[in-house]
Amino acid sequence: MKAVRFSTFGHPLKVTELVEEPDAALKPGEARLEVLATPINPSDVLTLTGQYGQLPKLPATPGNEGVGRVVEVKDSTAVRVGDLVFLPLGAGTWRTHLTAPAEALMPLPPGTDVQQASMMFVNPPTADIMLRQFVTLQPGDWVLQNAANSAVGRYVITLAKLAGYKTVNVVRREELAAELTALGADAVLVDAENLPERVREVTGGAKVRLAFDAVGGDSTMRLGDSLATGGVVVNYGGMSGKAPKLSTAATIFKDITLRGFWLVLWMKRTPREEQRALFTRLAGLIANGTLKTAVEGTFALEDIKDALARAMEGGRGGKVLLTPNGKV
Amino acid sequence: MKAVRFSTFGHPLKVTELVEEPDAALKPGEARLEVLATPINPSDVLTLTGQYGQLPKLPATPGNEGVGRVVEVKDSTAVRVGDLVFLPLGAGTWRTHLTAPAEALMPLPPGTDVQQASMMFVNPPTADIMLRQFVTLQPGDWVLQNAANSAVGRYVITLAKLAGYKTVNVVRREELAAELTALGADAVLVDAENLPERVREVTGGAKVRLAFDAVGGDSTMRLGDSLATGGVVVNYGGMSGKAPKLSTAATIFKDITLRGFWLVLWMKRTPREEQRALFTRLAGLIANGTLKTAVEGTFALEDIKDALARAMEGGRGGKVLLTPNGKV
Repeated sequence: MKAVRFSTFGHPLKVTELVEEPDAALKPGEARLEVLATPINPSDVLTLTGQYGQLPKLPATPGNEGVGRVVEVKDSTAVRVGDLVFLPLGAGTWRTHLTAPAEALMPLPPGTDVQQASMMFVNPPTADIMLRQFVTLQPGDWVLQNAANSAVGRYVITLAKLAGYKTVNVVRREELAAELTALGADAVLVDAENLPERVREVTGGAKVRLAFDAVGGDSTMRLGDSLATGGVVVNYGGMSGKAPKLSTAATIFKDITLRGFWLVLWMKRTPREEQRALFTRLAGLIANGTLKTAVEGTFALEDIKDALARAMEGGRGGKVLLTPNGKV
Repeated sequence: MKAVRFSTFGHPLKVTELVEEPDAALKPGEARLEVLATPINPSDVLTLTGQYGQLPKLPATPGNEGVGRVVEVKDSTAVRVGDLVFLPLGAGTWRTHLTAPAEALMPLPPGTDVQQASMMFVNPPTADIMLRQFVTLQPGDWVLQNAANSAVGRYVITLAKLAGYKTVNVVRREELAAELTALGADAVLVDAENLPERVREVTGGAKVRLAFDAVGGDSTMRLGDSLATGGVVVNYGGMSGKAPKLSTAATIFKDITLRGFWLVLWMKRTPREEQRALFTRLAGLIANGTLKTAVEGTFALEDIKDALARAMEGGRGGKVLLTPNGKV
């Protein structure tokens, strides 16, 4: 089997290589999976550069989620050859094959789109939990977010709509408005100095109490300045490379709070049953086509450097997927 | 009587003037007070420049707190001529005399230092509430703060010590260390890039979960980077003029929160009995000499511009007080 591997932290294009590894013999109760689709997430890039919040012992294979097909099972009836399953979380998924305990595998609901399912464990729960954890919203309430065209941003639009919340979506490129509106966005604004004023306009002066920030710097501050007294800005990414900040007028006079969200911490703190319930619910929404995000392109493992280069570019149209066993 | 007045927002030295006003006739139940001492707080300067969170209708007289002596009472036995009382909060206290309902006046505990009492209502409650509202501390826990030589900073040192908490105090000038240590500071550090590392050293690697920030910008970020997972940075001032920020490593990977604190909002949200209990407790601590802060100098109303200039300077040794009826 083949796997992407890195032995030092550094620029992703420089530190990654494709290596041949011997197939591991199955132990009783284990299944062998062929990896069908596995995405390149921002957290993978940050892991390669050594900037992520938890780093693997090196050498390591990147990749945290995806979908596989069972190709071999030893002494277990939990899954059968041919079954489509979610890859175990954090398994180092950028490889052609991996082995896992059959009992722990979660099957895809019948008819699920494999590409969409391969992106289920990182971004959809981030969007879903951020919508529920920080502020108790009621139907009709507004949510504000920047990086609205990101994978998380798009899931936020869909999940908010499903719950009856309205969204103001901040983007850098005007031409995204039509696409996000079609997805369910109630308002799309291009980020600019006058954002707080524009938010007031499009929401009719509603008290917006929750904002999501994946950009940092002044963009975070403009979100904070757009919120009503007592509002919360949740930072979950740093696309600008700048530290998220709030104006003192927001922190002091309007009691605006800046929080952070990291799914890894949430999983450490949340009982397994609650996690499983969340993933089952999201799997259902992906299976019935409610939750979906755009795919920029699929790449073979051999083209890992092209795939990484694309994943690290701005102005993408969607997520970059690796398809180590051919197109899916 | 004389009063400081301003009719437009702008530079404090330019917009303030001293004016003569007719003495108001007392209504039944009212008392006339001569103002003995009233401080120039940062919030007063921000009110004059128009940058504060709530602004008066102009023209207005600045000043929010102080101590007065009763010089006349009409049809009330609530106070007597000669009594020392706290001035009503937010009364526009930079004047020689003011009138107030006698029933609402809070007397100074006997033997209280008038200068210290005149500074009781803004900074001591800020320090006290910030120590209790955001993180539940236990004796032995550490608190981190910048601007440690400010009035609030010094009250934090004293109130923390009283509660059994330890303080790491960040300052800009090394020479303040001895003075703050004498006041009860457990550690004093000069602000610098390596602050997180220095905090670890002086606390023996303790999990610090609460920090107070009156500076903003990178200084806020260094406080955040010094805290343990789940910690809270409370911003209550912006001495640097820069927006408070956190690193994405702090927000996302360590769940650090940036909050703000404003006494005005606290008073709006807190039942009157609870407020009164707090002020009574603080008045006791000021009366017995436990709580005190340094005074840079006292100024007559006629010298309001000199007083404001001094209050707006860096590197002061303490608070600037107005003493409209002569030295106290």
